[in-house]
Amino acid sequence: MHSNTTDLSRLIHPRSIALVGASDRPNSIGERTLTNLVVHSRIDGDLYLVNPGKTEIMGRRCWPSVASLPDTPDVAVIVVPAAGVLAVLDECASRGVRFAIILSSGFGETGAEGEREQQRMKAIAERSGMRLYGPNCPGLTNVNAQLGMTFSPSFPHDLVKGPIGLATQGGGLGRNVMQAMERGIGIGLWASTGNEVDLQVADFIHYMADAPDIKVIATLLEGIKDGERFAAAVQRAAANGKPVVALKVGRSEYGRRAAQSHTASLTGSAEVNSAVFRQLGVIEVHDIDELVDTAWLFARALPAGRDALAIYCSSGGTSALTADAVGAEGLTLAQFASETTDTLRTTLPDYAAIGNPVDTTAAVLSDSSLVEKTLGAVAADPNVGLVVLPITLDYGETTTRMAQNIVNAQRATSTPIVPIWMSDRLGDGYKLLVEHGFAPPRSVNKAIAAIRRWTAYGRWRAAEGGELALRVPTVASSVADGAVVTQPLSEANAKARLREAGIALLPCEIARTRDDAVRIARAMGFPVVAKIASADIVHKSDIGGVRVGLEDAAAVQEAWDAITAAAHRHRPDATIDGVLIEKMAPPRGLELLIGVTRDPVFGHVLTFGMGGIHVEVLRDVSRRMLPLGKGEAAAMIREIRAWPLLEGIRGRPPADVAALEALLGRISDFVRDNAAWIEEMDLNPVWVDVASEPGKPGAGAIPLDAVIVARQPPEARA
Amino acid sequence: MHSNTTDLSRLIHPRSIALVGASDRPNSIGERTLTNLVVHSRIDGDLYLVNPGKTEIMGRRCWPSVASLPDTPDVAVIVVPAAGVLAVLDECASRGVRFAIILSSGFGETGAEGEREQQRMKAIAERSGMRLYGPNCPGLTNVNAQLGMTFSPSFPHDLVKGPIGLATQGGGLGRNVMQAMERGIGIGLWASTGNEVDLQVADFIHYMADAPDIKVIATLLEGIKDGERFAAAVQRAAANGKPVVALKVGRSEYGRRAAQSHTASLTGSAEVNSAVFRQLGVIEVHDIDELVDTAWLFARALPAGRDALAIYCSSGGTSALTADAVGAEGLTLAQFASETTDTLRTTLPDYAAIGNPVDTTAAVLSDSSLVEKTLGAVAADPNVGLVVLPITLDYGETTTRMAQNIVNAQRATSTPIVPIWMSDRLGDGYKLLVEHGFAPPRSVNKAIAAIRRWTAYGRWRAAEGGELALRVPTVASSVADGAVVTQPLSEANAKARLREAGIALLPCEIARTRDDAVRIARAMGFPVVAKIASADIVHKSDIGGVRVGLEDAAAVQEAWDAITAAAHRHRPDATIDGVLIEKMAPPRGLELLIGVTRDPVFGHVLTFGMGGIHVEVLRDVSRRMLPLGKGEAAAMIREIRAWPLLEGIRGRPPADVAALEALLGRISDFVRDNAAWIEEMDLNPVWVDVASEPGKPGAGAIPLDAVIVARQPPEARA
Repeated sequence: MHSNTTDLSRLIHPRSIALVGASDRPNSIGERTLTNLVVHSRIDGDLYLVNPGKTEIMGRRCWPSVASLPDTPDVAVIVVPAAGVLAVLDECASRGVRFAIILSSGFGETGAEGEREQQRMKAIAERSGMRLYGPNCPGLTNVNAQLGMTFSPSFPHDLVKGPIGLATQGGGLGRNVMQAMERGIGIGLWASTGNEVDLQVADFIHYMADAPDIKVIATLLEGIKDGERFAAAVQRAAANGKPVVALKVGRSEYGRRAAQSHTASLTGSAEVNSAVFRQLGVIEVHDIDELVDTAWLFARALPAGRDALAIYCSSGGTSALTADAVGAEGLTLAQFASETTDTLRTTLPDYAAIGNPVDTTAAVLSDSSLVEKTLGAVAADPNVGLVVLPITLDYGETTTRMAQNIVNAQRATSTPIVPIWMSDRLGDGYKLLVEHGFAPPRSVNKAIAAIRRWTAYGRWRAAEGGELALRVPTVASSVADGAVVTQPLSEANAKARLREAGIALLPCEIARTRDDAVRIARAMGFPVVAKIASADIVHKSDIGGVRVGLEDAAAVQEAWDAITAAAHRHRPDATIDGVLIEKMAPPRGLELLIGVTRDPVFGHVLTFGMGGIHVEVLRDVSRRMLPLGKGEAAAMIREIRAWPLLEGIRGRPPADVAALEALLGRISDFVRDNAAWIEEMDLNPVWVDVASEPGKPGAGAIPLDAVIVARQPPEARA
Repeated sequence: MHSNTTDLSRLIHPRSIALVGASDRPNSIGERTLTNLVVHSRIDGDLYLVNPGKTEIMGRRCWPSVASLPDTPDVAVIVVPAAGVLAVLDECASRGVRFAIILSSGFGETGAEGEREQQRMKAIAERSGMRLYGPNCPGLTNVNAQLGMTFSPSFPHDLVKGPIGLATQGGGLGRNVMQAMERGIGIGLWASTGNEVDLQVADFIHYMADAPDIKVIATLLEGIKDGERFAAAVQRAAANGKPVVALKVGRSEYGRRAAQSHTASLTGSAEVNSAVFRQLGVIEVHDIDELVDTAWLFARALPAGRDALAIYCSSGGTSALTADAVGAEGLTLAQFASETTDTLRTTLPDYAAIGNPVDTTAAVLSDSSLVEKTLGAVAADPNVGLVVLPITLDYGETTTRMAQNIVNAQRATSTPIVPIWMSDRLGDGYKLLVEHGFAPPRSVNKAIAAIRRWTAYGRWRAAEGGELALRVPTVASSVADGAVVTQPLSEANAKARLREAGIALLPCEIARTRDDAVRIARAMGFPVVAKIASADIVHKSDIGGVRVGLEDAAAVQEAWDAITAAAHRHRPDATIDGVLIEKMAPPRGLELLIGVTRDPVFGHVLTFGMGGIHVEVLRDVSRRMLPLGKGEAAAMIREIRAWPLLEGIRGRPPADVAALEALLGRISDFVRDNAAWIEEMDLNPVWVDVASEPGKPGAGAIPLDAVIVARQPPEARA
């Protein structure tokens, strides 16, 4: 396994390049790549052409092999047919080439034989330390350096420099994003990693996190091969103040199937994926236009800690439509400062609306100075974090003047002004806005959704505070060779482990005999619960293995008889340890559920919710990758729809949320410390006290039942 | 109140028009309207210009007044300043003009004085029978007849004829929709009703429902003035097989406030509004581009009863992205017929995906015949209702060829092919698609959302069956003069009314004395419930006025004492009728809530949900305007998220849903029959039996408590 902090700068800014498979056969991959490098790129260092059948191509010397080159290139771009790739890689490895970009296709995407070829590539790379990019990809496009190591004929048109870094797997969707330059959106670097035999999207996110010419990272994912690398990369970006906007295919079953047949990436659960994205500050979008528009908004300005918006508009209907979208997205309209209101009142006509939204009415559009003055005042308002300016119509000249007003107003302030071009007529005003870098979104609710993501990212950063705690997912340990053999611990054993980890539990003890049961119950005090104690019986209630509310010795004796009889009847094969006698939870309180599963991509994931129908029917849960960061326990408790029940609503007493937060934190620590063997945990129910009076501390949060499924160490397997 | 079935055909196709306020002052409203009529319109009948200060304008005779005209025009278009409008209207009324279009502004939108002016207009109209359109609107644009009774300089550009009828209040957003003709979308008729002093959006929906040149109706609403007219109009459209696509501003508090300050329309609850739209088959959208794209999809084809989709694509990533959106919207991908699969298998390369989504891979794009053959096969598949064809990139010629393939394939089938143009490069392929009427949407998830609405409408129509039951909302009776005085009925009284309406209730009787209580309880059999009986005490539990589970005479006696004492202590002023003794509901069962409120726009609305936290915290309810149509009780029960609890999940017994449906139907009838006085109803809880075995009939659905708030008849008021 390669480290995920390899320096990719010589791949992206190579001092010298070899093109292996260079050709002059028109429209061949070798010819197209050569043209992109020779004609359309600016290469300061050496470019070596390799083709054993030629001595010269396009007036340039051709070398018979990589071995024969006068110098070792930083990067070998390989465009030979699939069958020849391994030999070239061997040669490159021997020569000490640091990076190989394999544009050829015909590997993993074609089936099992191609997959075996890829394993051979990987072996070469691991042996030599050479890093591989591809195969089955259009290449690497460093627009900011005007370098196209790609066969794509689009490259020469793709040269709008800019602050967005784009990391994708597939080529088609990635190129779609590149075409956003038609709206003036500059994507400075595009890595399309194809089959990811070695380098992954995550590695390029990591590179971009440090690259000085990249301010925002956009990524398109069909699958995440290595959750740990991905998490490290996006946290690096966060630490460097660079937002990561991500579109991950596979949020529905149809999409998941289509993505799996297209790549062969591991696909974890879409819910886990979204939860982890949120947790790590990755801004998730669900469409390609959203990816572009959201990334561009971040490229224009980072949220500055004021997330209230202003709407400035010359149509009443549009102003209401936009206000609606703002409300529907849960955003806030700013309360204007009094100077702003004064300026609006004294400048606009009587019938204009000077609150927020500002509706200037179309009448003022003919007087540019009115717009300039009032738009300037709104954009300069200290309570306003962003100005939304929906343009309903293309009126021709009038609208072009409005566009010019926007350009001027934006020059005077760092508060972003976001014009929305709603008309299907794309006249001079639209072009002016594009030229000045506004790349106006076209749909009101998509624009407002992008702004919601923008402000949410600002809030996430604020909540994270100065120090971004690094989350290292526990996923590495999930990569086991062969099938995983698991075994549930007995309840008593599971609880013993939890108790050792500092988790409060009710007193409990295994009774080996009927008399023992009575003695234990007396010692802990009635009422008690009795449960069959056997690692072989997980669903104790189902076989009649649980009795609750035992108020006296006679009840305990009766319970003993009934439970042991039921266990013998239903599971004559089970090893019975006895009967677990446990103190009964106080009657007041609520029942919750805390679970831990192991996601194939992101490792251990904590799920929290109210039990019963809340989980089973309403699917009302929150999730976090473990270990939890600061504030995450608090956040996930408040995230469920049923939170008002915990908070205390309509005179209901509040639950002991502080204890619940502490419990989640201890579970997180416990799983982190035992990540190697914990496969799954199910604490259901967890009892949480409801304090009898608001504000009074409660009596805690206590798991009443505990199932822990352990991974058997390899030596314990049959 | 005007009838809502006035024939507007002479307004929309006038035989003669008078333009009152015609002018040649450049850029005045009078001049612009005149130019639109004289230069840009085709008027077969007479056009009279009226201006007392002129004898001729633009070489045409000018008349001093409406009275002096040689003939009575069908329509008077009024563009005089606000101050002169009333006098002109008076004159028109005297002359017997049938329709007046008032383009002038300066009325209700400017404040109370303008509102009073509008009341005067209204009085003239009601006296004379002349119908008014406006004021404060850009006019009426009959594109299909090339007639622009509008001052808008955009009119001459708005002449793409087409099957969409557009009815809006405000002008700005409406004109935005008109600009969709830039994408080849034809809007044949646009009514923008402004302040709606008389004619409303609903009246034009009604007209369009009957107009032969209109196939689809798009509407933009800031407020609905008259729910009954609106409901009648959209049901007329449904009866004539014309979908109505609606964007209603005001779904959030911000939007509601902005819309109210812009128009002065009544705004009911957004939840009620959406529920009624769904109920009446109105297709709701939330953005202006969605309005256009959805309407256009319906204009291209009505859903034909097959709602499974095919995705046809040449990029694996895009295919997965689109499949994702299809899954996220709850749509279905078709299972191809075997002939289709055979054609795909034998025509496409080995590495193409021939399932659904079809991923041809970009390699086949160079051979147009492969695309033509396979796309044709997919579009002709009998299991496919619609083909989605996302185009990732504009590759230039290759993409133009693909566009031509789409055009050809569409010619051969009535199954709509929906290309999504995802690239920001809008080259020849895009233009070709626009020319051929595809008006390609640009965003994958917006396109799929439009398709979801399209299929949902098809399903709605199928569920409605052949006969569309006409729902007449109970709203008319809610228009009361002055403030409404209300009074809750006592529980005993409320239940008596329900029982008369055929609604099953538990036996109950008011005990006037302690002994009486025991006698009643014995007669109905224990256990019983005792509740304070007083119309003055609505929240009986809150004051200790309810005792449940009374198992014997002693318990009843004790309850009597406690309840009467509590009532006297807490509400010494209340009139106490006694104590209501009621048979206790069987212990098995679920508790539900059924409520009725009166929406200011749509009248009585039924709300259904599971009680307690489901309603209070999770807001999990369904709603319908009353009276319920066929199948609506069943639908609203199944619509709540908690439906699985009623259906029976994980071994839980199912609830007696049939009884619940019957109960909702009886409540609907009861409210319809008593609409004049019922202001509000709250049946909470309603007990529903859970049958002990799936499939066995249950013991019913019974309201346990009933509050009915009555509107006092005017004569009963103080």
